[in-house]
Amino acid sequence: MRRPPTDADWMAAAVALAWRGRGRSAPNPNVGCVVIADGGVVGRGWTQPGGRPHAEAVALAAAGSTARGATAYVTLEPCAHASPCGPCCTDTLIAAGVSRVVVALQDPDPRTDGRGLARLRDAGIAVETGVGADAARGAMAPWWSRATRGTPFVTLKLATSLDGCIALADGSSRWITGARARAHAHLERALHEGILVGRGTLVADSPRLDVRLPGLEDRSPRRFLLTRGAAPEGWTAVAAPEAVAGIDSLLVEGGAGAAAAFLAADRVDRLLLYRAPILIGGGRLALGDIGLTDLADAHGRWRLADSRLLGSDRLDVYERVRRD
Amino acid sequence: MRRPPTDADWMAAAVALAWRGRGRSAPNPNVGCVVIADGGVVGRGWTQPGGRPHAEAVALAAAGSTARGATAYVTLEPCAHASPCGPCCTDTLIAAGVSRVVVALQDPDPRTDGRGLARLRDAGIAVETGVGADAARGAMAPWWSRATRGTPFVTLKLATSLDGCIALADGSSRWITGARARAHAHLERALHEGILVGRGTLVADSPRLDVRLPGLEDRSPRRFLLTRGAAPEGWTAVAAPEAVAGIDSLLVEGGAGAAAAFLAADRVDRLLLYRAPILIGGGRLALGDIGLTDLADAHGRWRLADSRLLGSDRLDVYERVRRD
Repeated sequence: MRRPPTDADWMAAAVALAWRGRGRSAPNPNVGCVVIADGGVVGRGWTQPGGRPHAEAVALAAAGSTARGATAYVTLEPCAHASPCGPCCTDTLIAAGVSRVVVALQDPDPRTDGRGLARLRDAGIAVETGVGADAARGAMAPWWSRATRGTPFVTLKLATSLDGCIALADGSSRWITGARARAHAHLERALHEGILVGRGTLVADSPRLDVRLPGLEDRSPRRFLLTRGAAPEGWTAVAAPEAVAGIDSLLVEGGAGAAAAFLAADRVDRLLLYRAPILIGGGRLALGDIGLTDLADAHGRWRLADSRLLGSDRLDVYERVRRD
Repeated sequence: MRRPPTDADWMAAAVALAWRGRGRSAPNPNVGCVVIADGGVVGRGWTQPGGRPHAEAVALAAAGSTARGATAYVTLEPCAHASPCGPCCTDTLIAAGVSRVVVALQDPDPRTDGRGLARLRDAGIAVETGVGADAARGAMAPWWSRATRGTPFVTLKLATSLDGCIALADGSSRWITGARARAHAHLERALHEGILVGRGTLVADSPRLDVRLPGLEDRSPRRFLLTRGAAPEGWTAVAAPEAVAGIDSLLVEGGAGAAAAFLAADRVDRLLLYRAPILIGGGRLALGDIGLTDLADAHGRWRLADSRLLGSDRLDVYERVRRD
C-alpha cells in the first residue's frame, strides 16, 4: 500500500477479526478490535467463544504498555455496564491510556447505547463513530438482528439443479450437490444457533441436521420444526416463522413449504443458493407459493453478496435489501 | 510476456480472430489466421461475411511480401479444392512463399480432409497440426457440428428466477431478467442461423424472435416451430428436434415443453442460463419432463464454460460434455 492506512483500513482489519467470532460469541456480539501505535498493529482481539473476554480486553492485553497513547478501532461501542464477569471495556480502554477510540457502530443495547462513548470522551479520549458501520453490522448481523428487531437473522438454504428443482418428481434428492457444497452447508450449520425444517421434510427425510465436520461435531444448532402440531424429542415446535425466538440466527433448510412460509412472512435475510450443474426437468420446485402476484414486486429485494464455485457446484449468496 | 510466444500463443490469437466470423460465415467455417515473421504479426484474417474471402487470403493479402519465409497459423486445414470463387487457400499459401503452416484442426469436409496438408508438405512447407484444437473447435462449433454430425449446434436459452421459474403460475413473465440480459439474448439470436419455440409459446406470446439491437436488425435468424401441425407464414414447422436441418446453429428459446424435448433427445450442446435476483415461488418450471429417473444419471453432463453478471442478472453458460 503506497498511502498510509486510513481509519477505514484499520476498521476493516477490526471487522475481519470480528468475523472470527461469528456464531461463537452468543449471547454477546462478535466484536473485533485492533490497537494501533506508531502506524502499526500492537494488539488484536475478537470476542472469545461464549462471549468473554471481549475483543477490547484481548487486544489491550496483547498491546500491554504500548497501548498508552495508541488508537483503538472497535467494531461496536465498548460496553459501559458493570458485569460480574469483569470490568467494562470502557474502563479497560481508559485504564490502558489509549488517546483515541474509533467505533463503527453505537451499541443498541440500552445498558450501553452511547454511555460508553460519553465516558470515553469524559476521560479526555478522542472518539469517532460511524467508520465502517455497514461492514461491522454485516459481521455481527445475527446479534444485531436480535438486539434491534428481537428476531433472529434468518438464512434460507436452497440446493437445486440448474432448472431450479430440489428433487425429482418422485422426491429423490440424493444427491443434487456434490461433497464440497454439502460440506460448506455443514459449515453454515455450525455458524447458526438454530436450524429449521418443515413437517414434510422431517417425515420424508428424518434429517439429523447436525454438523458432520471433523472437529465441529459439538457445534450442531438447536432444531426447530415448523408445524401446527407437536415436535419430537429434541426438537422445538414453532407454529409460524414469527414464533422462532431465543436465538440470534436461524438456518431454514427446507422444504419448499417452510421456505415459502418464511419468504411470505418476509423473514428471510440471506439466501444460500447451491446449484449443481445438472438438469432434472419436471421435478419438485424449490419454493411454494410466497404470495407474489406481480413480477414487478419481486425485483429490488435481493443483492448478490458472494458467489463462488464449490467443486462443480456454484454457491450464490444473496442478502435482503431492506430500505427501512 | 517474458518468454517468446509459442505456437500455442499464436494459435490462440488465430482462434480469437475466428470468433469474429462466428455466425456470419455460413456456409463456410469461421476460420482465423495469423501470419508471423521475425516474431511479430504481419497479417491477420478471418472468414468474411458470407464465407469469402477466406481467413488465409485476408491474412496473406495483409502480409504481402513479408509472408515469404513466414509461419501461418490457421484454425482449420486450408482448403484444397478449386472453387469458382477463386484459388484454394493451399495454393495461395504456397504462392505466398510461407515456410511453415501450423493448423489446429484437419478439415472434415471430404473435399479437403488432409489433402490441403499433403499439398503443403509436397510443396516443401513444414506443417504441424493439432495445436489449439479444442479452442479452434469451440470457435467454429456450429459449422463443425453440421460438418461432422449433420445436425445443428443447439443452444438452449432459459431465463429464470433464483428459484428456477420462467413465469408466475398465471403465465406472466414480463420481465424476469433486466434490460442488459435481454440485450445479450438478442445478441445471441444474431449469432444463430435458426431460432425455435414450441407451439405453446407461439400461441401465448406471439414472439417475433427478431434481433432488436441497433445495427443488427438484418441478422434475425430463421424461425422454426416445434409442432405436429402446420406453421404460420414465415415459420418452418418441425415435428421433432431431429427434424431441424439446413442450418448450422439453432437457438431454442422455449417454452418448457420444447426445451424438454430437445434435452430428452440429447440435442442440446450449450445452455444459456440467465438468472434474475428475484424469487417467484410456486411458478412455472423451466423444464418439462426430460426422462430422468435416477439423479446419478444427471451428473457429469454439463461443464461451466462462462459466467458473468449482466446488470444484476447472472449469465451462466454450460456446455454438454460428450465423451464420444
